[in-house]
Amino acid sequence: MSLLVQKFGGTSVGSLDRIRHVAEKIIETRQNGHDVVVVVSAMSGETNRLVGLVESLVDNPDPREYSVLVSTGEMVSMSLLAMCLSAQGFPARSYTGAQAQIFTENKCVKARIERIEPHPLKQALQEGIIPIVAGFQGVDSYGNITTLGRGGSDTTAVALAASLGADECQIYTDVDGVYTADPRVVPEARQLTHITFEEMLELASLGAKVLQKRSVELIGKYKVPLRVLSSFHDGPGTLITYEEVAMERPLVSGIAFNRSEAKLSIIGVPDQPGVAAKILGPIGQGNIDVDMIVQNKINDDLTDLSFTVGREDYQKAVVILEQVAKTLGAKGISSDAKIAKISLVGVGMRSHSGVAQKMFEVLGDAGINIQLIATSEIKISVIVDEKYLELGVRALHAAFGLDKEANEEFDPKM
Amino acid sequence: MSLLVQKFGGTSVGSLDRIRHVAEKIIETRQNGHDVVVVVSAMSGETNRLVGLVESLVDNPDPREYSVLVSTGEMVSMSLLAMCLSAQGFPARSYTGAQAQIFTENKCVKARIERIEPHPLKQALQEGIIPIVAGFQGVDSYGNITTLGRGGSDTTAVALAASLGADECQIYTDVDGVYTADPRVVPEARQLTHITFEEMLELASLGAKVLQKRSVELIGKYKVPLRVLSSFHDGPGTLITYEEVAMERPLVSGIAFNRSEAKLSIIGVPDQPGVAAKILGPIGQGNIDVDMIVQNKINDDLTDLSFTVGREDYQKAVVILEQVAKTLGAKGISSDAKIAKISLVGVGMRSHSGVAQKMFEVLGDAGINIQLIATSEIKISVIVDEKYLELGVRALHAAFGLDKEANEEFDPKM
Repeated sequence: MSLLVQKFGGTSVGSLDRIRHVAEKIIETRQNGHDVVVVVSAMSGETNRLVGLVESLVDNPDPREYSVLVSTGEMVSMSLLAMCLSAQGFPARSYTGAQAQIFTENKCVKARIERIEPHPLKQALQEGIIPIVAGFQGVDSYGNITTLGRGGSDTTAVALAASLGADECQIYTDVDGVYTADPRVVPEARQLTHITFEEMLELASLGAKVLQKRSVELIGKYKVPLRVLSSFHDGPGTLITYEEVAMERPLVSGIAFNRSEAKLSIIGVPDQPGVAAKILGPIGQGNIDVDMIVQNKINDDLTDLSFTVGREDYQKAVVILEQVAKTLGAKGISSDAKIAKISLVGVGMRSHSGVAQKMFEVLGDAGINIQLIATSEIKISVIVDEKYLELGVRALHAAFGLDKEANEEFDPKM
Repeated sequence: MSLLVQKFGGTSVGSLDRIRHVAEKIIETRQNGHDVVVVVSAMSGETNRLVGLVESLVDNPDPREYSVLVSTGEMVSMSLLAMCLSAQGFPARSYTGAQAQIFTENKCVKARIERIEPHPLKQALQEGIIPIVAGFQGVDSYGNITTLGRGGSDTTAVALAASLGADECQIYTDVDGVYTADPRVVPEARQLTHITFEEMLELASLGAKVLQKRSVELIGKYKVPLRVLSSFHDGPGTLITYEEVAMERPLVSGIAFNRSEAKLSIIGVPDQPGVAAKILGPIGQGNIDVDMIVQNKINDDLTDLSFTVGREDYQKAVVILEQVAKTLGAKGISSDAKIAKISLVGVGMRSHSGVAQKMFEVLGDAGINIQLIATSEIKISVIVDEKYLELGVRALHAAFGLDKEANEEFDPKM
């Protein structure tokens, strides 16, 4: 018998029919002999309804009261789900953040969980009762109702799983799990049965929509085995793990991409210590986030520097960079908004060289020119012309054998 | 400076506009130099919406979860009102039943308040914060959310006023206060500036709709000066008091009436000890509530007994009574569904005789035959033909001078 924490998001409990369906899933888990603690979000639409009331009433709502108001959304779904389970002979009991003793910092919104007192839920489990806990909420040391940051119900589930020593935290959502690439671009994309936490973190940073980046970071803090799976379709989902058994891991786990960036270059800048800071300082002061940065020294005196920014900041960045080029006596600037970023992610890269070389060859064979390259320990990102995005992603997906069930034996030198 | 508890019902906070209006009323109270603790009901319609969800989901909802669900209604209105006040520079803080430390018996629905720990609210008042407390809810000794019985928010307000030693508990509702008679029947009916608790209890029992009978009973337990007034129109409302200064009280405070009863008589029953019990026992066993009971001994051997029941039970009562008459060897039965009850209520009756005599004369002069009479210490009720209801009420209203501002000097013997 295992102890599972199962979290159901807003669309999973979005109607009375969906709540009935979730109750069935929980009953199935119990009938399979597992103990289960459930975490629920508000029914989809409910939080928006409550926020709509606030917006019509006041401009800057008091944060304490805002949290009181939105916390009712999860109370509605948790009590309905508990009723539904109890009515079917599976005694369940709902818990607010305060009742579950989820203590947060003394900050009413975007509060961080500081401590969970697991006794009340453990007691319920011992009595054969299924605890249904409100996600996204806690209580501070003064007894105020607090709410967590974005993706807060995931955080509740992960923190509870850690505190209870659960065997697995299962995040039920409206996607089936994590794929080797977006199936809309790569029809052969395969759902991953497992992925490491670091890979998940890179994929979330790169824009994969399964889990919020912040949630993934928090997951890492608690190191709970976490499974993402669909409440709409049956299936094993994707397990996120923390142990890295490199021999069993694929070189490349997934391919992420986006076309939401633009590239800027400053050319022929007289090289001197701190020149990168002089170029990127004014960009940062303009509240523009920079993603990739590549510096390329041309000769002893001159250097080129390229970087990417969000496409929404492109025009603003061009204006700033023109001014910087003038100030620094650069030869000029160049810029391109029609670019795409393709990234390979995989912990296997740590122990195997040759992945980057293979990636460049595959893209070269497909006639795709690489404009920028950036690497991290478990990721290689390249910038290419936007029109080559699908071609490049599909070529890489096939070349790295991601459509095959087990690509562990794949030899990059082959 | 006084301390007031102000309670606003569902229609008073039924929309964002109404909530803004309530905030203005509270600000006015503060600007007049008073401290105030506010109790709110759920926005009208909200509780029905939540109950509707339950009814579509399960047949016999778990009482604990039912209370969790409906308690969110008051949380929504309290947080919106607190935001609205704070945004206008009047710091306010909402309190759930648990946060306000309103402890009830260990029973999730229709729970009775056992104890209130007033420290948290007193602390807020000292800090210049307006506490906004959720009506209708409390917490049991296990930390479960509980809800009170019908009229529960009134009970919360009265219990808080008692616990805080408030100078007055003000129940804002959609009526202006208590009237000498229903203004729809008696256009000259006058709003009472004050009424005693016992009179209010009689009027509530007789069907006046201002306060629930159960709420009035609870009010008496706590003995808090209570004022009923409208959140829609300005005005002093009606103050319910507990001190009876008879010399200052009118003989008759108000006239209540209803046409929701029917009369049954059993005629010529051989008299013997316990005959009333033999007649009314089977009626009670049929789950029929009996209101007035009048026994009239005809001679040494025979007695008549009449009583009234709710009109919805009339047919059923007739069938039972016919059987009883046969068993007891009575001469027969008679029955009439087209009757009305008219009641005079007033604590002044205690110290002055002659009110009943005057009532009978007024009705006699109007050509109205009295079928039954029942009296209590501060009430006289008569049963008359239904068609005389308005005529009788108006004649009594005029004869007892209820349309005049001060009827204290009225002499019943005049």
